[in-house]
Amino acid sequence: MEQFDGYKYIEGGVCAAKGFKANGLYCGIKKPSMPNDGNEGPINNMKNDLCLVTSDKMCNAASVFTQNKVKGAPVTVSQKNLKATGGKAQAFILNSKNANTCNADGEQKAYRMCELVAERMNIKPEEVLVAQTGVIGQIFPIEPVEDKIDELINGLDYDKNIEAATAIMTTDTVKKEVAVEFELDGRICHLGGMGKGSGMIHPNMATTLNVITTDCAITSAMLQKALSEIVKITYNCLSVDGDQSTNDTCAVMANGLAGNKEITSEGEDYKVFKQALYIVMMNITRMLAKDGEGATKLLECTVSGAKDLDTAITVAKSVICSPLFKCAMFGADANWGRILCAVGYADAEFDINDVDVVIASDAGSIHVCENGAGVEFSEEEAKKVLLEDEIKILVKIGSGKGTATAWGCDLTYDYVKINGDYRS
Amino acid sequence: MEQFDGYKYIEGGVCAAKGFKANGLYCGIKKPSMPNDGNEGPINNMKNDLCLVTSDKMCNAASVFTQNKVKGAPVTVSQKNLKATGGKAQAFILNSKNANTCNADGEQKAYRMCELVAERMNIKPEEVLVAQTGVIGQIFPIEPVEDKIDELINGLDYDKNIEAATAIMTTDTVKKEVAVEFELDGRICHLGGMGKGSGMIHPNMATTLNVITTDCAITSAMLQKALSEIVKITYNCLSVDGDQSTNDTCAVMANGLAGNKEITSEGEDYKVFKQALYIVMMNITRMLAKDGEGATKLLECTVSGAKDLDTAITVAKSVICSPLFKCAMFGADANWGRILCAVGYADAEFDINDVDVVIASDAGSIHVCENGAGVEFSEEEAKKVLLEDEIKILVKIGSGKGTATAWGCDLTYDYVKINGDYRS
Repeated sequence: MEQFDGYKYIEGGVCAAKGFKANGLYCGIKKPSMPNDGNEGPINNMKNDLCLVTSDKMCNAASVFTQNKVKGAPVTVSQKNLKATGGKAQAFILNSKNANTCNADGEQKAYRMCELVAERMNIKPEEVLVAQTGVIGQIFPIEPVEDKIDELINGLDYDKNIEAATAIMTTDTVKKEVAVEFELDGRICHLGGMGKGSGMIHPNMATTLNVITTDCAITSAMLQKALSEIVKITYNCLSVDGDQSTNDTCAVMANGLAGNKEITSEGEDYKVFKQALYIVMMNITRMLAKDGEGATKLLECTVSGAKDLDTAITVAKSVICSPLFKCAMFGADANWGRILCAVGYADAEFDINDVDVVIASDAGSIHVCENGAGVEFSEEEAKKVLLEDEIKILVKIGSGKGTATAWGCDLTYDYVKINGDYRS
Repeated sequence: MEQFDGYKYIEGGVCAAKGFKANGLYCGIKKPSMPNDGNEGPINNMKNDLCLVTSDKMCNAASVFTQNKVKGAPVTVSQKNLKATGGKAQAFILNSKNANTCNADGEQKAYRMCELVAERMNIKPEEVLVAQTGVIGQIFPIEPVEDKIDELINGLDYDKNIEAATAIMTTDTVKKEVAVEFELDGRICHLGGMGKGSGMIHPNMATTLNVITTDCAITSAMLQKALSEIVKITYNCLSVDGDQSTNDTCAVMANGLAGNKEITSEGEDYKVFKQALYIVMMNITRMLAKDGEGATKLLECTVSGAKDLDTAITVAKSVICSPLFKCAMFGADANWGRILCAVGYADAEFDINDVDVVIASDAGSIHVCENGAGVEFSEEEAKKVLLEDEIKILVKIGSGKGTATAWGCDLTYDYVKINGDYRS
């Protein structure tokens, strides 16, 4: 992981910050398959599907959600809740296996999830956030949640972040957690998060489900400002397949237990906090890209020399989203024409004759295009560079100051396989 | 093929109209591989790679080109030529195997192609159109064209449309030709075309190379108007993979030999002509979609009830472009949530609660979503419908009059395979 001065990576995910408990378990939202169905046995299907993150103290909260017109019921409920409380939350309940989207009784059931938690924590249902992921358009069974809610709450602890992080996995092959420690105002602060997402990932709000917790003291307004700024250059610069989910949710909860002076405006403290948020969200973004459905390679495209940030983002995303480029990377084929083509159809202002392209990895770097035209390079060297599992595409498009990175992954046989029969 | 009153499908492709000759041959733009390279033997590699279409009489011409900032040299040259002549052309030379794009000497060589034809036909180089397709960024070898130009011209004939249509194929598995006969002003008119394209196909100008010829008399201005209107609802509604090529070119040449009164303005004759153009271009669009790289299914999404044509187009394209939807169709999986999700992220105005979705094929039709929510259906029936090789997705999004169709194909293992190592 890239190192940042003044920030130390630590364990603990959503439990890294003071006063946050978590738990996760299997409640049976989807019935286990029989062992002889030729796919997966009951053991695989009985992995965690329900989790809860709580704070010992009421939190200031901020969030971003999908921009899809089709919004999952939990998105609508969480939005309403945050509005009702003016940006407060003390718990966040999440499940996988069923997105509870496009169901007539969806909102009622998502709200019921909040009630089940609130009753037992002695808080208002509006102070609970909810997120759900999985198949769209199948009735969500609330009974398994009702049956297991006491066990879920009784088992909450300050070190059960992994139980929670594994409960939101769908086609994810690894759990995604990052946390950092940093100093603010003489106090040790912590900020950590967990994410899930593998397919149906695209700008904007390229994330599916994310929970971030911090013991830093910061107002809801400043928290929202920081989250919106950072999501733009991290999750929103991630694309696995160009599809934008109905249930994307990212919420940050800040309980203030670190004891720093509350951040109420922009300034040095805000900058330090925002950088911590960037480190955690950027690393989760990379993990999401690397674990993209069927992916064998992490692709990172950095565009520099753009006239502004938005131009850099647009061009970087265009490259990362190109299926032809993604296939070429899967094949370790230095077909740089595909990169230039994607740069060319980006809806952004620049002169194609200024474009330089370098392909790089731990095995070296290859200059493949200069001033918009090909330059000679060794195909053998290029192959060596492209056989690595993390590939960087460096695109210079002029002499401006705009720079941005977008993340993605290669397009493989397995992506097609996973999505050809997702519901089974 | 769908039938249209007053129009008869005929053979002949680009030679169907009076006074048009064609020829195609293998000139060796790419050196044949050795037989033991494990891929393809020299015979496969020696398929036609160069072709020419000419008219006995100077034509009025119209064209549309790629909107990619990276434009192939032949695109620039053809644009300049048409501008220089004010919309006239008598010949169109095309090659596959090399796109002549991103090369410092590209324009010079593309223009040289025009000169080689013009010298032998005793016309101006500006009266020749040129289009090239294949790998981007490899120096184009003009020598094989110079060596074979006499043979190409001497072999021109009124029935060599197939020689031409096969010469522009790249990863295409079948040639694409359509022609119709119709009556205008008491005269028998013909309009026919050929197309190529398999990957890197996306709105706008979703086509790669297309040549359309007609003996109908029509001014360049009206020809351009008709072409622009029809391309919007045919080629521009086609997506195979979301990538927009650098070399997309579609040109229509009209020599007037049918003897009808020249079409100079909108009116009944213009309508009849435009419909002929629609029939040919729509059928080529379907062929391009069905032969999409690795495709096993043609997908046709028709959106109705939109407030206007543009809204219908936007929503239909959004569905057709969704990789998750495309994978589900490959797997014959009635995962309608993926359709609704893609409808939802379309950048268009409508109420998601009005959305109805029907999946149909020759095996029947299944209503899967009503008023934005799922309806019960038999998975068994749905499977039967989806196992067909032409699938229609009918999406109603309101009660407006806007209707449009977009065409695409499923996303398969073979797409990944073809594009993982395209240059080999």
